[in-house]
Amino acid sequence: MPTILGQNQYGKAENRVVKITRDGDTHHIKDLNVSVALSGDMEDVHYSGSNANVLPTDTTKNTVYAFAKEYGIESAEQFGIHLARHFVTSQEPIKRARIRIEEFAWERIATSDNNSKFIGSDEVNHSFARKGQELRITQVTFDGEKWEIISGLKDLTVMNSTNSEFWGYVKDKYTTLKEAYDRILCTDVSAAWRYSWTSDDERMPNWEKSYEQARKHILQAFAETYSLSLQQTLYQMGARVINSRSEIDEIRFSLPNNHHFLVDLEPFGLKNDNEVYFAADRPYGLIEATILRDGVEPQIPVDMTNL
Amino acid sequence: MPTILGQNQYGKAENRVVKITRDGDTHHIKDLNVSVALSGDMEDVHYSGSNANVLPTDTTKNTVYAFAKEYGIESAEQFGIHLARHFVTSQEPIKRARIRIEEFAWERIATSDNNSKFIGSDEVNHSFARKGQELRITQVTFDGEKWEIISGLKDLTVMNSTNSEFWGYVKDKYTTLKEAYDRILCTDVSAAWRYSWTSDDERMPNWEKSYEQARKHILQAFAETYSLSLQQTLYQMGARVINSRSEIDEIRFSLPNNHHFLVDLEPFGLKNDNEVYFAADRPYGLIEATILRDGVEPQIPVDMTNL
Amino acid sequence: MPTILGQNQYGKAENRVVKITRDGDTHHIKDLNVSVALSGDMEDVHYSGSNANVLPTDTTKNTVYAFAKEYGIESAEQFGIHLARHFVTSQEPIKRARIRIEEFAWERIATSDNNSKFIGSDEVNHSFARKGQELRITQVTFDGEKWEIISGLKDLTVMNSTNSEFWGYVKDKYTTLKEAYDRILCTDVSAAWRYSWTSDDERMPNWEKSYEQARKHILQAFAETYSLSLQQTLYQMGARVINSRSEIDEIRFSLPNNHHFLVDLEPFGLKNDNEVYFAADRPYGLIEATILRDGVEPQIPVDMTNL
Amino acid sequence: MPTILGQNQYGKAENRVVKITRDGDTHHIKDLNVSVALSGDMEDVHYSGSNANVLPTDTTKNTVYAFAKEYGIESAEQFGIHLARHFVTSQEPIKRARIRIEEFAWERIATSDNNSKFIGSDEVNHSFARKGQELRITQVTFDGEKWEIISGLKDLTVMNSTNSEFWGYVKDKYTTLKEAYDRILCTDVSAAWRYSWTSDDERMPNWEKSYEQARKHILQAFAETYSLSLQQTLYQMGARVINSRSEIDEIRFSLPNNHHFLVDLEPFGLKNDNEVYFAADRPYGLIEATILRDGVEPQIPVDMTNL
Repeated sequence: MPTILGQNQYGKAENRVVKITRDGDTHHIKDLNVSVALSGDMEDVHYSGSNANVLPTDTTKNTVYAFAKEYGIESAEQFGIHLARHFVTSQEPIKRARIRIEEFAWERIATSDNNSKFIGSDEVNHSFARKGQELRITQVTFDGEKWEIISGLKDLTVMNSTNSEFWGYVKDKYTTLKEAYDRILCTDVSAAWRYSWTSDDERMPNWEKSYEQARKHILQAFAETYSLSLQQTLYQMGARVINSRSEIDEIRFSLPNNHHFLVDLEPFGLKNDNEVYFAADRPYGLIEATILRDGVEPQIPVDMTNL
Repeated sequence: MPTILGQNQYGKAENRVVKITRDGDTHHIKDLNVSVALSGDMEDVHYSGSNANVLPTDTTKNTVYAFAKEYGIESAEQFGIHLARHFVTSQEPIKRARIRIEEFAWERIATSDNNSKFIGSDEVNHSFARKGQELRITQVTFDGEKWEIISGLKDLTVMNSTNSEFWGYVKDKYTTLKEAYDRILCTDVSAAWRYSWTSDDERMPNWEKSYEQARKHILQAFAETYSLSLQQTLYQMGARVINSRSEIDEIRFSLPNNHHFLVDLEPFGLKNDNEVYFAADRPYGLIEATILRDGVEPQIPVDMTNL
Repeated sequence: MPTILGQNQYGKAENRVVKITRDGDTHHIKDLNVSVALSGDMEDVHYSGSNANVLPTDTTKNTVYAFAKEYGIESAEQFGIHLARHFVTSQEPIKRARIRIEEFAWERIATSDNNSKFIGSDEVNHSFARKGQELRITQVTFDGEKWEIISGLKDLTVMNSTNSEFWGYVKDKYTTLKEAYDRILCTDVSAAWRYSWTSDDERMPNWEKSYEQARKHILQAFAETYSLSLQQTLYQMGARVINSRSEIDEIRFSLPNNHHFLVDLEPFGLKNDNEVYFAADRPYGLIEATILRDGVEPQIPVDMTNL
Repeated sequence: MPTILGQNQYGKAENRVVKITRDGDTHHIKDLNVSVALSGDMEDVHYSGSNANVLPTDTTKNTVYAFAKEYGIESAEQFGIHLARHFVTSQEPIKRARIRIEEFAWERIATSDNNSKFIGSDEVNHSFARKGQELRITQVTFDGEKWEIISGLKDLTVMNSTNSEFWGYVKDKYTTLKEAYDRILCTDVSAAWRYSWTSDDERMPNWEKSYEQARKHILQAFAETYSLSLQQTLYQMGARVINSRSEIDEIRFSLPNNHHFLVDLEPFGLKNDNEVYFAADRPYGLIEATILRDGVEPQIPVDMTNL
């Protein structure tokens, strides 16, 4: 046979699971979008259509919902670990499981005085608004021995309205750009960081706190860096995460440069003193890089942040 | 000629304008998406292609940017009023202007201790993250005499994890739905409200405060209503806005019922005690209604909230 | 009570139904997205939460699927007519039904020689590719007596690479646009046309043929009009439909002007002889108008084509 | 320094270029979305913000437009080759260029009798409608010595209304799925194939013909395979391309299983004889695999088809 099967995986993608946990009258929400990808001894199903080694994708969906009950959802990472371990250890032909999760954040709705009773005489501790800012992501991979946990966020839009410059670059025959000594710097942060934790023998990080702290360092580094290029800002964001969080060894960013062009108002007899901008859609600069703790091997795929 | 021209309008849509205002070192952002639609004596351009009465859409775009400098952007409503007045009063063939605006909200990035100096020795008062929750909208219409201001919001996702029931409904031969005595109620609020202000002779509302208060009342009514149907919750949200804000006469909602189905875990020997839900995409219930101050004439179009 | 209920409607939106019809071994597909909106005596459910007049949206969904079996899907319009009639005539509190349908078109996959047998020894007459061009739409409204049928299409992108000019327009102090004597004209056609058919006493149009012919006339008028403004092209497209199809009385278009800007290549020593264009996203011109058969009353809502 | 820079790249993404070529009165369109990513000696810009090695992303944009004039656009692949070669050979710090291109297809609008004259007395050979089916993609990578050309398509939706089964799979405690002996098989084909061409010393494939043929084989294999699993269909599609096109060594697919669930009509006294389906959105099965010519090394990244 002149053709052979290469890398392959299958599963149920985008299982939307919402878990309500009750702490007396106070409710807590976890809202996830879970995608399962399994691989292993799958030659037969590709070559002949025999499903003898295939756990149906419908079953992987059922498992997501059942595990939300059986284990609860402490964090996206912990939930992914339960799922990945189950698939690899319970079915002999499955050698590797990759669980990708997106998490939507919710915040409580503040009511009149927050202690008031409402119709029905409970306190309002079960009402939420979706935060709608970044999407939290995680990818848990397990091959029966080693774990790889890559977490991150997508689409966190940030802007500095000053303290950004761009000059001193290469000029060739196609260069027409004017140097800029005070520009808007705006980007949608996509970041993916890899935890050093790889084995059940090691103590797990606190996934929730780690996420919150990595996010905080990214935002603060963005705000506090006087930028000579988006690459420099990117590096500062990454270095600050690695330096502040010992449990994280590697981080990759994909940062569009959301161009804000100063509008030429001179034809109308007006001076635009860095006040009025046109926010452009396409094209956009796109800056991508990995920052590593010195000495570690990079493992985050180049396009991880596009997922 | 057997065919004639009916209602028509033209203009430049989706002008993305970002305005930075400096208050010493502290910057403020207004981030708008502005769409201009003009109508008037436009028969010739349709019948023969003569552009003698046509102010180019490119000019309407330029005007948006020039006015951001000339008038600043105090609020989306006020900015729309400046634009609509200009088009109708400056060009004789233009009899009516409709300005639609979407506004993106930003919040300041909190830094380490918020008073710290950073590299470059300024305070961090120029760094922002996009809130990413609802989109604020407004539509300003002017015909040379009367104003119509409809404002609102889109895509504010809210959820009550209890205090919602649905029973006692009509049952016909196609009815299979089970009655529910404790369900999740989740919707993406789209709301459009009309201000009673219609004339330059009247005192204008405080547009910013009015928006903030209407939004607050919508959220609180959602949280505090024990719901027997989404229609009831909708009515409470609207009534509360009308009753609390004398400047608003009419409000229309479009509320999808974002179904959260309780997953049947019995096949796996598990009891689902209102804990694990499947969040469905399509189809969804869709509940739409207008609430009016008694005695006023409705003017908000049926599909206003879909825009 | 200081607030009252105004216009309201409810139902199940976006019911995705696929119907396979077998003609021997040859299969036919109808692929629809059906949205039901009902209105009538619905004060109670809004004021008190009583569902005694409410046919559940879940039941309206069931009805869509049951009717696909009971009546088949001859055309989107005919299917909507069956549904609207059912809701209004079977439930006393329901006074009006509006059925909106989007239709996805499919075409047969051409195989090697189209008569060949394949593994399994049937002919390949059950394999399809989605056309992916325009979305066909219809809206059927019935109040128990009169019908209103508005059909159309969305997102049919067309381009003329020449035979378009734009000059002779108004110039004010904000005008900087240069006149153009040979430009690209590109738009995404959204069109909605209203049939004169309103009563069961009249003979129905052939909905399938009518759609196909209206679409053809729109495309041909776009291609064959030497354009001095997009308004002129729009009018020609509408007039041609009205003049060619006696069953159609009114048509409304919403046409974005998808700007293609000639790139300035002179800085690179190159002449751009109407060859290389930048296709812009936002902002875009937006031209909207209704064309009517002389003497008829306009009924298509201004924003019908945005739905 | 405890952190170091890993893989990095930068450039201008999504440059929308439309090229009109005139062959007498007959016009031809190429409509591309071009993304440039460059890498090389870029430590300084990340560590210190020095742009001395940085060719601005704005310049890479200008180059795209200038090359559309200088070289024309024979095919997306050939255009990418011109660009990649230029960046790597013209700027010493740039060691690698990756050009990704999406191509939108257009077809001519058929007019009344296709030879008719229209107003203005030309033939209608400059009017087009966008096909709107799949998106053609290519990725060209060059490191100064070797070329890697990966081409493909995205979002080509296909359906078999019969000749698909699924049974004989693993059953565990979470399995509830019923076996299916006649089901709808529907997917959105995303495919990426790698050409064996890697060196300027070899004769280039005919990129246009190769695309058209690969697409045809994929469609025919989908139509002609009696399917026992989507994996089997996937393998047949890939094997047919490899076996039929000697210039292609490897192909990867990402195939969502767009579930069409048979609606249970029994509660309404109706029998659903494989006629009425609910087309679901999420979750969906997701089947991904690479097929290789025996003996070649796989190079297409696992997530290539998600880009």
